[in-house]
Amino acid sequence: MADDERLVRLALSRAKDVGDAALLAAVHEHGPWAARERLLAGRDRDDAARVAAELCTRADPVGDLEVGRRLGARFVIPGDDEWPDTLDDLEGVTHVPGRGGVPIGLWVRGPLRLDELVGSVAVVGTRDATAYGALMAEEIAAACADAGRAVVSGGAIGIDYSAHRGAVLAGGRTAAVLACGVDRLYPLQNAPMLSHFVEHSALVSEAPLGHAPRKLRFLVRNRLIAALAAGTVVVEAALRSGALNTAGWANALSRPVMGIPGPVGSGLSAGVNAGIRKGELALVTSGEEVLELVAPMGEALVTERRGPVRVYDDLSPDQMAVLEALPAAQGAPVDRIATNAGHAVATTEAALEELALRGLAVEDLCGWRVG
Amino acid sequence: MADDERLVRLALSRAKDVGDAALLAAVHEHGPWAARERLLAGRDRDDAARVAAELCTRADPVGDLEVGRRLGARFVIPGDDEWPDTLDDLEGVTHVPGRGGVPIGLWVRGPLRLDELVGSVAVVGTRDATAYGALMAEEIAAACADAGRAVVSGGAIGIDYSAHRGAVLAGGRTAAVLACGVDRLYPLQNAPMLSHFVEHSALVSEAPLGHAPRKLRFLVRNRLIAALAAGTVVVEAALRSGALNTAGWANALSRPVMGIPGPVGSGLSAGVNAGIRKGELALVTSGEEVLELVAPMGEALVTERRGPVRVYDDLSPDQMAVLEALPAAQGAPVDRIATNAGHAVATTEAALEELALRGLAVEDLCGWRVG
Repeated sequence: MADDERLVRLALSRAKDVGDAALLAAVHEHGPWAARERLLAGRDRDDAARVAAELCTRADPVGDLEVGRRLGARFVIPGDDEWPDTLDDLEGVTHVPGRGGVPIGLWVRGPLRLDELVGSVAVVGTRDATAYGALMAEEIAAACADAGRAVVSGGAIGIDYSAHRGAVLAGGRTAAVLACGVDRLYPLQNAPMLSHFVEHSALVSEAPLGHAPRKLRFLVRNRLIAALAAGTVVVEAALRSGALNTAGWANALSRPVMGIPGPVGSGLSAGVNAGIRKGELALVTSGEEVLELVAPMGEALVTERRGPVRVYDDLSPDQMAVLEALPAAQGAPVDRIATNAGHAVATTEAALEELALRGLAVEDLCGWRVG
Repeated sequence: MADDERLVRLALSRAKDVGDAALLAAVHEHGPWAARERLLAGRDRDDAARVAAELCTRADPVGDLEVGRRLGARFVIPGDDEWPDTLDDLEGVTHVPGRGGVPIGLWVRGPLRLDELVGSVAVVGTRDATAYGALMAEEIAAACADAGRAVVSGGAIGIDYSAHRGAVLAGGRTAAVLACGVDRLYPLQNAPMLSHFVEHSALVSEAPLGHAPRKLRFLVRNRLIAALAAGTVVVEAALRSGALNTAGWANALSRPVMGIPGPVGSGLSAGVNAGIRKGELALVTSGEEVLELVAPMGEALVTERRGPVRVYDDLSPDQMAVLEALPAAQGAPVDRIATNAGHAVATTEAALEELALRGLAVEDLCGWRVG
């Protein structure tokens, strides 16, 4: 029964390109059988409907499952134990025209269960990462891993790579959500890392086996990164960057969206800085601050960063004035210090006493000086 | 008459250290004569009152004016032509305990009139500026100068210096508001610049002639920078920095307060990043963005920074899918492209026509390929 549903969903996943909003809505609202019936019944409406119906009927879901099995991949669908409820929040959410909704199913290649990604943090950014961005991505990811949260990213070079790497080095969980089928280790430069994930973690994709990565598929894939994670951090992004598209999806899902600021001259920080400026991204500077925003209200509160506490921090204005009127080398008599400080002698004496207690003033043969 | 008032105010300015909230409130509410009477009448209350009364009666305002004249300095008071109304907004505003309010008068040394600072921009930051901070301060200041706005800063080394320099090099107006008397060119490293201001611009201070710079006087001075300017920009500031104190005053005055973000690892950007994070500073990345926030609502709107416009920006999802399905080298027949794109032949043909019009697809002997 559940496996029947899996086969129908697999066939439907080949009917249209990934994330077709109308198809996904039909599957989510009416179930896969009814959605399939509608699809086949509407085949004469136009060419596109005919192609979709044909792709659906021609699909070989049993064969797909078999190919998947050989690759160590399974097709996870709503209702499965490991299906994370967080994905259901995608219902009705479209951030790319005509694309969006709860996926029909997700291919998962690797031992990590999808529900282990609940509460995870997405760390995304440019492929052209600078050393600064790479370092920040690794640090944020490691902090999340240390806090027991998985790190989700897109498996790309640059920031994605550093994010995955930070989680792995910290001994945490991480998963790469791909724009192509999980049978493809794309991009080639990251094949060693992606192979490692097949053995120890997971590659995740909505795309049917064999599908190539395409621009639109990246944009549609981004919604899965945003939806699987409890919050999204953009580390470096140019003014038009796929990472900002992920942030847009997270925003549409009302999940926390954060950005690491960078120097103004860096084009690779321009997108993040602009997002912070417009209030679309919350500025964060550490894993601790990310965890605070991702955690339920009131948990994981950040200790506010403060400068060093200085010895004269709690001096009164009077005491401060006297301290500043003290000579550094040779002591001066109280009345001269009082004049310099603009205070009465009595006030000055009281202040000197207090300063002496704190070791800030000392008396010598000529009077008082800095301690 | 006005000169009588000037003399009374000058004497009062020597009664207490700068920015004494009680004295300034008395002068502002009851006028200088009544404030002076109260001061003298209360001399027996305590030592501090006795010292204040004595300093006021011992003062030599005529002598001060004469010394000032020789230095090219004048004592500007409320009611003078060049007194800027913006300073009156300081009434009742205290951001340092016991300090604040409308100044009794301001020493101005140099030809610039105080009212030329109305609508100015304050650019402040750390003395330990990095090359990044110095560059940003200069750029922001130059942009303000180009827009006809004066640049106010504190005459210190680091960010202050770069801000003044940016305004001067752009041929704009700038003034240094000091924590010491305008007879002192402090700090020594900036004496050449400060001398230049005496000839061509202005040094401004609330402190009586001869007064040395002190920690408290810097904090109290900061309110004048914030009040003279229409908005304040913090360029680089450590977590505890005087520049953030200036931002606090500007905030207390409900003037726009802005910050330039910086890399997370730089301790000199930590104060600014933290201020942006807490919503105390608006993130800005250019003079243009500063001017937008400082200008009256709706004027000087920034053209939103955008990435490069790409030739396929306004393609439909169908056209994009077809474009991505096109071979790069040798053309392919329409039906194969349609299959790759997941579209019907008719849709694919329509998309190819549109792509060809834009030069994105070309037909060759074998079919269609990327243009």
